[in-house]
Amino acid sequence: MDLVWICIIAGLVAAGVAVFFVRYVLRQDQGSEKIKEISAAIREGGLAFIHREYRTLAIVVVIIAIVLAVIPSLGWRLSVAFVFGALCSMGAGYAGMNMALRSNGRTCAAAQKGLNQGLRVSFRGGAVMGLTVVSIGIIGLSILYFAWHGLPENEFLFIIPAYGTGASLVALFARVGGGIFTKGADAGSDLVGKVEAGIPEDDPRNAAVIADNVGDNVGDVCGMGADLLESYVETVIATMTLTTVGVVIAPWLTNLFPGLSTDAALQAAWWLPLLVMAGGIVASVIGCFLVRVGEKVDMSALLGALRRGTLGATILAAVFGFLVIYFLHASLSLFWAMLAGLVAGALMGESTNYFTSYAFKPTQEISEASTTGAGATIIRGFATGLMSTWPPIVLIAAAIAVAYYFGSFYGVALAAVGMLSTLGVTLATDAYGPIADNAGGITTQAGLPEEVREKTDALDSLGNTTAATGKGFAIGAAAMNSLGLILAFTMAVGIVTVSGGKLILPEALSLLSVPVIVGIFLGALMPPVFCAMTMKSVGVTTSAIIEEVRRQWREIKGLMEGTAKAEYGKCVDIATRISLRQMLLPSIMTIVAPVIVGVVLGKYALAGFLIGALATGFILAITLNNAGGAWDNAKKWIESGKFGGKGSDAHKASVVGDTVGDPMKDTAGPSLNIMLKLMSVISLMLAPVIMHFGGLI
Amino acid sequence: MDLVWICIIAGLVAAGVAVFFVRYVLRQDQGSEKIKEISAAIREGGLAFIHREYRTLAIVVVIIAIVLAVIPSLGWRLSVAFVFGALCSMGAGYAGMNMALRSNGRTCAAAQKGLNQGLRVSFRGGAVMGLTVVSIGIIGLSILYFAWHGLPENEFLFIIPAYGTGASLVALFARVGGGIFTKGADAGSDLVGKVEAGIPEDDPRNAAVIADNVGDNVGDVCGMGADLLESYVETVIATMTLTTVGVVIAPWLTNLFPGLSTDAALQAAWWLPLLVMAGGIVASVIGCFLVRVGEKVDMSALLGALRRGTLGATILAAVFGFLVIYFLHASLSLFWAMLAGLVAGALMGESTNYFTSYAFKPTQEISEASTTGAGATIIRGFATGLMSTWPPIVLIAAAIAVAYYFGSFYGVALAAVGMLSTLGVTLATDAYGPIADNAGGITTQAGLPEEVREKTDALDSLGNTTAATGKGFAIGAAAMNSLGLILAFTMAVGIVTVSGGKLILPEALSLLSVPVIVGIFLGALMPPVFCAMTMKSVGVTTSAIIEEVRRQWREIKGLMEGTAKAEYGKCVDIATRISLRQMLLPSIMTIVAPVIVGVVLGKYALAGFLIGALATGFILAITLNNAGGAWDNAKKWIESGKFGGKGSDAHKASVVGDTVGDPMKDTAGPSLNIMLKLMSVISLMLAPVIMHFGGLI
Repeated sequence: MDLVWICIIAGLVAAGVAVFFVRYVLRQDQGSEKIKEISAAIREGGLAFIHREYRTLAIVVVIIAIVLAVIPSLGWRLSVAFVFGALCSMGAGYAGMNMALRSNGRTCAAAQKGLNQGLRVSFRGGAVMGLTVVSIGIIGLSILYFAWHGLPENEFLFIIPAYGTGASLVALFARVGGGIFTKGADAGSDLVGKVEAGIPEDDPRNAAVIADNVGDNVGDVCGMGADLLESYVETVIATMTLTTVGVVIAPWLTNLFPGLSTDAALQAAWWLPLLVMAGGIVASVIGCFLVRVGEKVDMSALLGALRRGTLGATILAAVFGFLVIYFLHASLSLFWAMLAGLVAGALMGESTNYFTSYAFKPTQEISEASTTGAGATIIRGFATGLMSTWPPIVLIAAAIAVAYYFGSFYGVALAAVGMLSTLGVTLATDAYGPIADNAGGITTQAGLPEEVREKTDALDSLGNTTAATGKGFAIGAAAMNSLGLILAFTMAVGIVTVSGGKLILPEALSLLSVPVIVGIFLGALMPPVFCAMTMKSVGVTTSAIIEEVRRQWREIKGLMEGTAKAEYGKCVDIATRISLRQMLLPSIMTIVAPVIVGVVLGKYALAGFLIGALATGFILAITLNNAGGAWDNAKKWIESGKFGGKGSDAHKASVVGDTVGDPMKDTAGPSLNIMLKLMSVISLMLAPVIMHFGGLI
Repeated sequence: MDLVWICIIAGLVAAGVAVFFVRYVLRQDQGSEKIKEISAAIREGGLAFIHREYRTLAIVVVIIAIVLAVIPSLGWRLSVAFVFGALCSMGAGYAGMNMALRSNGRTCAAAQKGLNQGLRVSFRGGAVMGLTVVSIGIIGLSILYFAWHGLPENEFLFIIPAYGTGASLVALFARVGGGIFTKGADAGSDLVGKVEAGIPEDDPRNAAVIADNVGDNVGDVCGMGADLLESYVETVIATMTLTTVGVVIAPWLTNLFPGLSTDAALQAAWWLPLLVMAGGIVASVIGCFLVRVGEKVDMSALLGALRRGTLGATILAAVFGFLVIYFLHASLSLFWAMLAGLVAGALMGESTNYFTSYAFKPTQEISEASTTGAGATIIRGFATGLMSTWPPIVLIAAAIAVAYYFGSFYGVALAAVGMLSTLGVTLATDAYGPIADNAGGITTQAGLPEEVREKTDALDSLGNTTAATGKGFAIGAAAMNSLGLILAFTMAVGIVTVSGGKLILPEALSLLSVPVIVGIFLGALMPPVFCAMTMKSVGVTTSAIIEEVRRQWREIKGLMEGTAKAEYGKCVDIATRISLRQMLLPSIMTIVAPVIVGVVLGKYALAGFLIGALATGFILAITLNNAGGAWDNAKKWIESGKFGGKGSDAHKASVVGDTVGDPMKDTAGPSLNIMLKLMSVISLMLAPVIMHFGGLI
């Protein structure tokens, strides 16, 4: 039996369980008329945004597909794979978001019955997305395999990166566009509502509240799903490319797969990542069912329930990985390489948790600094963000070193596979957060009793923790993944060659060759400029939202008194239009920059460029993500009654911190992940073109 | 005649002019009794700090000197050179600061007579520091040359980096310690005075005002001088090492010095950087005398006067450089390499000016964002800082590429020499700023009429511009300089070798070799962690200052009514103690980290480590520096009456921005420069030790 069937079966299992969860959620009570009405408005706004976004995206995808098709050294198949990747990503994002939009109101209704029921509905709503992503990812790759694996080797090699590029491109647009939308709407709604008019968060008199709720879905759900689908498939792609181009022809191939002929070893090396992923999917499905709490429920029990799911899946994935390695007759050392990635991924989440949860000192110190004013809050939070870079970087460096020791470049790529194998359940815990957040918003808007809001708040607060952990994981995965793609790129453009069973690294790729140095500098520049653009875009959107809400208060009689209804759709519409316009420039820069560097400065400079971008991008992404998370929770810590509690000067200072952190952690930071991956995979895809350029100058 | 005499004569000319300026300044009127009293207090505090700092430093220097002396492969000469470098740096810092402390009150008195007179006194006070630094730098190198150039080649090669390391170490401590002191005192004084008690800045009832004024001198004058002395000598050291180890034995040596024998060409290559520096010193001296304004004086005339000085010196330095190259029979292409550095340095200053002066859009937009609140101010400012990284990075990358094209590695090192050759005058315009700032403070404390304060404010505001430009220049110089040192390091440890007239870059240094990748990641981590530490230290100092001022208000009867005097010395003492304690950890980390990486992970990882640190450090330094400068000036723009002016909500928001920016631009950012250089030069100095380690693991 062709091994690909195992992957397809795993994918179908995930899809089946996802359908089971969908039916479970849809069976739930939709709640009161008021809840239905609000969640319908959110759904309408969310779908309107996604339809418009996908229309814009379709134009970009078609243009790029045509360009790819007419470049002689690439060909139509690559163009088709690119479109296919884009469609898969759109599908995964759409499915996940659509489900989230249907779960929010139901979670709200379920929370009225009890915390446990609320957790179950929201988690299963999120799990649909997690499982859909891995299912689409693995089945998509399998379809490509069926269609074209019979082609001469090199052809298939360049087709699969195109699939990744398609997915990556959609992910970038979804993350950037969604991120600008969500934080523009959030900040606008807060500034004009809470700060200016002094009305509570999620108050229905604020025309921007629906836009704010829509934002959680389009940014955190749809964007996150597309982001991780991309990491998922590109990790496999990087490993496959490395295998196909023949790194493993190096002498240690026979060590890694002892007792196999070279051909059989190559085959085994090719299948190993896919089968580890398949095992991880099964582990994730089981993990999803491990998430349940008993009758007596508190916060730590909730967190424990989610932990049980992810930890269980991690252990199972390790076991399955071991079995795969055993049955493929691979050396045990590959197991250690895979495990290095798996463990690093899990620990990275824990480190994020330490630096951003108010259960620990760093965030509590930010709260304390708030008593001295907003300036101290910002400085302390920013310092925390900078400091928090060390565990992830050290973990990734250690994982790379260990994986390399056990399996050379192939081991490094396999470590990334290990890290991402449990994505199904990690993503489920992540997508659950925005659903709970939305449920909280609906609770307030629908005027449900305080005790329900308390329950949805508990779910929301837990969601913040899992969101931070999930983001830490996403960044780490992106870093490992980019590195794998960069290695694959250098093979594909023939920088690194294999001769006489040995890897040949040319002098021109030396760290000190001037094209490489210039490339590193220019690459290092990309992430900060990209962040500057996206953060500025959030500001533009925020201003427009504020103006619109003010206009409605001015022009709609009775709105403030609660006798007239706000035009929620207008705010959604404005945020949609502006965020889609604003996402174009940074996205296009990301696509074009590596191409220009590759063509003008040559392939060695491009390799340096990608590594330089990875270095600063990784640091910046962690800093922005964790500083933002820590500010958010420092505010929550004060709101829980510390340092004067709500309304105190310390609280006001902490609100400033939160405002600053929002675009950092929800727009700029997470978009960086995709930016790094996209630049790497575009370079890989265009390898046949770039190969011919020694650089124009 | 030995060419070294030219350098010594240039150094003596600079010293002579410095003495002339000292006598000029000391001849000036010291002003009223009140002025004398205040400036005596500042002087006392500043000297107390510097004495304590130097005592701490002396211990560290002696310990390191002993360690160096007992390491067999290094030897006592290296240890002596190290101590000599440390002493030179201490001397330069001390002289510059001492002069600044004597110029501040006199500037205040001179400003009573007119703006022109105020400019002359403060500029000449600053010029003493600029000229002292270049004089000490070039004479120090010459002394080492006399003492030990007769030794077998390799010995002298490893002695000169030790001189740089000594200077670098002192610079780091001065910058970090001074930076923590100055911003801790500044923020503490502002928060407890302006914000809490509502009394004006520099009000004598505030016990921290003298500490604040002392801070300007210990951080901005002494620290900056040590910083640039280091860049200055290390640039020459990098070029010499490259020459001595024999990069220039590559075939293009004969191209670069056509018509010379190999020996003569090597000699010429060795002397070229020193003579370019000597020419630059003469150009700087002339530049200093070009700074004068006519009778009709306004801001643009003031700026024009300073510009004339730096621009004139730049043109003259280019001319002198050309002559040196002509008389050494070098190829004209080396002139282009040098010019690339000179021009990049000048343009980098302009770009900093664009991003941080309120005459331009970026800063004005931050002021505008302040109308939406503190959060928007921070985000916009941070985005501006991130965006402002592109011109310097592109300029440096272009300078590297051009210089390499014209003169290979030697050309790159020479570009750095070109950039720093006009340091004498650049540093003069820079050191002038804090003197004017202090003069402003004294004016207020002495209760001089408003019109005098207006004049010192004009001088101060101009000083902010030149300080920003100077910082941009310092960062660029540090980046070029680090790169030169890293190249020299790889030669010295034998990573890069010369064989058959060709450079051999080994595979192990490949961008994709795993030790290099791990090194890049770990190196990239150093700058953010370092910044996190120093920024946190500022917070610790600030809190202590606030408590002390509050205590004095509580315990000293009549202080608030103006009948009793505050204990200024206590605040200076507290800031001194805390900042000196806080500076130890980040400084020691900087010294130890490269040694550990070199010994444990090996020399290839160390090369990656240095490049990784350079990439993130450069980006971070520019971001912090420019964001800080822009926030400061956005506040000033509002204070000039825009967006509601002083006291408006926009102004309050902009004050938060300024508070956040202060430790970024005056502590963390500038310290990064030195950190990058110190790590590189330590690696170079320890090359004989590190050479033997392939890495423990």
